[in-house]
Amino acid sequence: MKTSDLSPVPLPATFAERLIRGNVMTAECPSREILKHLTSRWGALVVIALMPGKQRFSELRHCIGGVSERMLAQTLQLLEADGMVERKDFKTVPPHVEYTLTPIGCEAAEKIHGLVDWLETKLPSILETRSVTT
Amino acid sequence: MKTSDLSPVPLPATFAERLIRGNVMTAECPSREILKHLTSRWGALVVIALMPGKQRFSELRHCIGGVSERMLAQTLQLLEADGMVERKDFKTVPPHVEYTLTPIGCEAAEKIHGLVDWLETKLPSILETRSVTT
Repeated sequence: MKTSDLSPVPLPATFAERLIRGNVMTAECPSREILKHLTSRWGALVVIALMPGKQRFSELRHCIGGVSERMLAQTLQLLEADGMVERKDFKTVPPHVEYTLTPIGCEAAEKIHGLVDWLETKLPSILETRSVTT
Repeated sequence: MKTSDLSPVPLPATFAERLIRGNVMTAECPSREILKHLTSRWGALVVIALMPGKQRFSELRHCIGGVSERMLAQTLQLLEADGMVERKDFKTVPPHVEYTLTPIGCEAAEKIHGLVDWLETKLPSILETRSVTT
């Protein structure tokens, strides 16, 4: 065999490069952590609230009933770290910070919105079934 | 106006009958509680694991990596109370209990599967973005 027949030695690939797709059924799969952030009580509501476009912190707080300042800040940080939300600080006094969905965040929001929209529509019949059986 | 022109006095409607649709952005809406059960760490995985058909408790535990007996039992109870899962006890010794998705549970599972399937597919690029920015 000639040397030219040999493929070049591949560079060591990172975990992300080697990964073909995730599997949420596996305890160690990092998809679980991202799913947790997206479907957490406030995570799901934040991505849906950002669907119409950029929002300031106070606007998000007003839109999402019952969320505390602390929980909203923490949720936004996690979603920003996962690449779902982009935070833009205009470095002004008083502070002006805007949050938007990234392209991947938009895709996630659409999927979550599909579930939530279905749930909101079906809620009356779900509650009727609950009250019959409980 | 003749008496026959009057519509009959409607019976007092229950909350579920009066409700047209839910709104998860409202703190008091019961859709929040159902969404929480469906998108909890184990709730989402249980409904997806039940998509192929009926499963016994031990089969579910085997399929969902890392779930404890206690957490699986609790998750199944909540999903059963919401009308998403049906539990069939064959009253045999040793016990034989099967779990299946109800028709409404199937609809929920499809929506959650849409999100999870998207996440599993996109995981490599999400992780690459994360490793670049963190």
